[in-house]
Amino acid sequence: MLGLAIPTPANAENFELPPGAGRGKSVVILGAGIAGLVSAFELQRAGYDVTVLEARHRVGGRVWTVRGGDYVEQFGMPIQRAEFDEGLYFNAGAARIPSSHRVILGYARRFGVPMETFVNSNRNASWDFAGKVRQDRRMVLDLQGHIVGLLAKAIDQHALDQAMPKSELAQFRRFLQFYGGLAPDGSYQNVGGASGYAVEPGAYDQAPSDLPPLSLRETLPTPAIGLPHVFEFIPDMQATMLQPVGGMDRIAYAIYEQVKPLVRFGTPVTAIRRSGDRVRIEHGPQVTEADYCVCTLPMNLLSRIPNDFSAAKKAAISSAPAYFKSVKVAFESPRFWESDDQIFGGLAWTDRKNENVIYPSNGFNQHKGVLVGAYVAGWTNQDNPDAFAALSNEEQFKIVRDSIEALHPGKSKLMSKPVTVRWGRTPYSEGVSPLWPGNGGQGPRGPQYSELFKPEGPIVFAGEHLSYQPAWQEGAAVSAHAALKLLQAMAAERTTAAA
Amino acid sequence: MLGLAIPTPANAENFELPPGAGRGKSVVILGAGIAGLVSAFELQRAGYDVTVLEARHRVGGRVWTVRGGDYVEQFGMPIQRAEFDEGLYFNAGAARIPSSHRVILGYARRFGVPMETFVNSNRNASWDFAGKVRQDRRMVLDLQGHIVGLLAKAIDQHALDQAMPKSELAQFRRFLQFYGGLAPDGSYQNVGGASGYAVEPGAYDQAPSDLPPLSLRETLPTPAIGLPHVFEFIPDMQATMLQPVGGMDRIAYAIYEQVKPLVRFGTPVTAIRRSGDRVRIEHGPQVTEADYCVCTLPMNLLSRIPNDFSAAKKAAISSAPAYFKSVKVAFESPRFWESDDQIFGGLAWTDRKNENVIYPSNGFNQHKGVLVGAYVAGWTNQDNPDAFAALSNEEQFKIVRDSIEALHPGKSKLMSKPVTVRWGRTPYSEGVSPLWPGNGGQGPRGPQYSELFKPEGPIVFAGEHLSYQPAWQEGAAVSAHAALKLLQAMAAERTTAAA
Repeated sequence: MLGLAIPTPANAENFELPPGAGRGKSVVILGAGIAGLVSAFELQRAGYDVTVLEARHRVGGRVWTVRGGDYVEQFGMPIQRAEFDEGLYFNAGAARIPSSHRVILGYARRFGVPMETFVNSNRNASWDFAGKVRQDRRMVLDLQGHIVGLLAKAIDQHALDQAMPKSELAQFRRFLQFYGGLAPDGSYQNVGGASGYAVEPGAYDQAPSDLPPLSLRETLPTPAIGLPHVFEFIPDMQATMLQPVGGMDRIAYAIYEQVKPLVRFGTPVTAIRRSGDRVRIEHGPQVTEADYCVCTLPMNLLSRIPNDFSAAKKAAISSAPAYFKSVKVAFESPRFWESDDQIFGGLAWTDRKNENVIYPSNGFNQHKGVLVGAYVAGWTNQDNPDAFAALSNEEQFKIVRDSIEALHPGKSKLMSKPVTVRWGRTPYSEGVSPLWPGNGGQGPRGPQYSELFKPEGPIVFAGEHLSYQPAWQEGAAVSAHAALKLLQAMAAERTTAAA
Repeated sequence: MLGLAIPTPANAENFELPPGAGRGKSVVILGAGIAGLVSAFELQRAGYDVTVLEARHRVGGRVWTVRGGDYVEQFGMPIQRAEFDEGLYFNAGAARIPSSHRVILGYARRFGVPMETFVNSNRNASWDFAGKVRQDRRMVLDLQGHIVGLLAKAIDQHALDQAMPKSELAQFRRFLQFYGGLAPDGSYQNVGGASGYAVEPGAYDQAPSDLPPLSLRETLPTPAIGLPHVFEFIPDMQATMLQPVGGMDRIAYAIYEQVKPLVRFGTPVTAIRRSGDRVRIEHGPQVTEADYCVCTLPMNLLSRIPNDFSAAKKAAISSAPAYFKSVKVAFESPRFWESDDQIFGGLAWTDRKNENVIYPSNGFNQHKGVLVGAYVAGWTNQDNPDAFAALSNEEQFKIVRDSIEALHPGKSKLMSKPVTVRWGRTPYSEGVSPLWPGNGGQGPRGPQYSELFKPEGPIVFAGEHLSYQPAWQEGAAVSAHAALKLLQAMAAERTTAAA
């Protein structure tokens, strides 16, 4: 029997199964999200006979781009129909790709998906905390400046005389003066205007003057502001961030184009059975049998589907962390944030219940855009996302309008056609990703975790939840590669045994 | 007589002269760069009879986009012909627009110029200083982390007990732990992997591990690295930065479309004369007379053109700072920086003679792109730009190839079709912008400066050099607005006097 997988290296964009290795062998793939689509493409390429069973009538899973005319169905809620104008879209799920995610970007490149920048930090955007709206540049750069100024003060008071050689310390102190925008006395004064101007530089004799900085206390009014202050340091949130031109689902659909005849839509799996050394997948009254199976279903759904898994596997699945259930609310609007406030893409942060606002990174200077007025995931509010998800649609829309009104006085009335997507109420998802411990779910996971990606006879497992890139398309893609290596090794062994 | 101008407010994107105010009045505009084009558009709109005299056979001035088939003529150098493939371009001059530059962006919006992000910081790019190539994220975030760690150390040693109340200090210290990626002992250890991973997060059991940070000394190896460390704090370099889709000249050409019949190309000005209360502009054997003149010529050229200016004006022009003479070198190449190194736009910095590399922010995932392998302006090298400009084309190209080879081993051989543009040797420019004192030329300018923008009878003055946004299109645009207000006031006064 096979032991644990040798992990797929992150730079596996040249992944390829041995050509022809799949001839005469069949695989059923459960789910046509990124993990399922990547599996289908790679297995088909290697000659396997592939069937993909997808519950929905679209591919992409949690990569979901909502366009005008699309319906949003949510458990226990009235159906919404998005009414966005032609060409506008709302990335209700995945919304950005770090440029270091080379496997999913490798598929985008392979299939010629045009990519563009996703603006993930914008100094012109604003933060709204403790009832005060202030530009991002003030919150971010005044905090940095105060840190540098306090360090300069400590050095001047000889607190760091033991930390480094005297000449090096003197040189470093000189550097801090320039780096931090410090006044001659070493205090932080926004010298150079990094955090803003009181008078902007203009024509003729309109010389600029620096905006007096916020106090340290104003940059850190409450603990809720912590995440926004570190957001751009998070490895997966650093520039350059990317998005496909035309909507986040374009990569999923580009892979789908390669495997189109293999995908059966509207086919939710109702049982996962083994039949000798083969698999037997029940979907309602019908059955699909195959030599192997790649199961990409999220654990929260998998735990409810009757199956023949080992007791250890079942226990691992049922003891996995709960899925978090973020919510996004989008409106269509004339682009007042561009024309009035010079905000081109990027994020606003708030301690209001909507937490995070995403300005569109595409279509700059066009008349209208889709403004994501709430991305609620517990970024700045401990009760979220569940508290926000529990509100009615109208309550959510009101919160968003009030927040946008605070950020852009007089403008919220221009917003129309709201749509809310609660991932906890989205059929065939019911959540986004298991809450693995540690920042970004990258901490240690305990002994049960390794049970989750052990094969069950002819069944291998994939999905973002089986990676240290949880909730990212990259995690889904690399987990598929890992699963396919296992499957290929099993198939090779079976062929040898039969020979 | 008029005194000094009332400065145009920076948010003058709704600038408009009184409709019909120019009826029966003529204006000659010297130069079809941004200041000249903006002047022509606004004066025409107000009913003035406008003629624009432009020495070159293109508009835009120092906004110059070089495409395949274009010729690059430089004093004393062989003519170069750019051979870039269709659709590729090289912004040899202006290359980015801060999103806060509302006047030039207002014109882009008015004329429907599509805009896209210019990536101005990229954590995946690398810096090459003191012979060591390291990722931007390590240089930038390890420096920040060490600053935070040293401050935490100083707080722990009670150096800041007097700086703020005890409870606030304790809370701030806790925040620093999280903000800085500090280890439990308070030292900076890149906890969370912000500056990189030793093992990347992968599939199945491939948990990430943090890259040990660079030492403080490694992040600050030499003073040459100072500018790159503050670059993203410079007000005009902060995200979001923008560029027109298709080349930086698209805004200039969009304005030109509005005033096309008014522009006379190939018409260098040879003398600026007054004739009664009118102007008489000589261009070679020909003469253009008008009631008024908007002179947008750079001071370095203006000082050589015979004129009737007052002694004070002549003295101010001849005592203005020298123009700086930056150089850019571009190559066409397959996009190895994207496919191999996951670098999508952004900058590399080096203390080599090429100083700065600009990766294309457009056309991600296309086969080829234009790589600006040198942007030489004295960023990191005190002898530049003059030292680099003095080299032969082949010497420059070799320096760029060697630098790209250091950043991308094995790849420089893919680069082809080099073009170099020395602004000091570019006819009708001979430089970029006067070296006004202060960071970004925004410091105090001395008494002579205000002489420069005083009208000379019917002649008003505009151009980036007459603004506190020197070397930016915004400076040219706002200076034009200021000049037109003066001109309009003079015209109104003359009409009143005649009535």
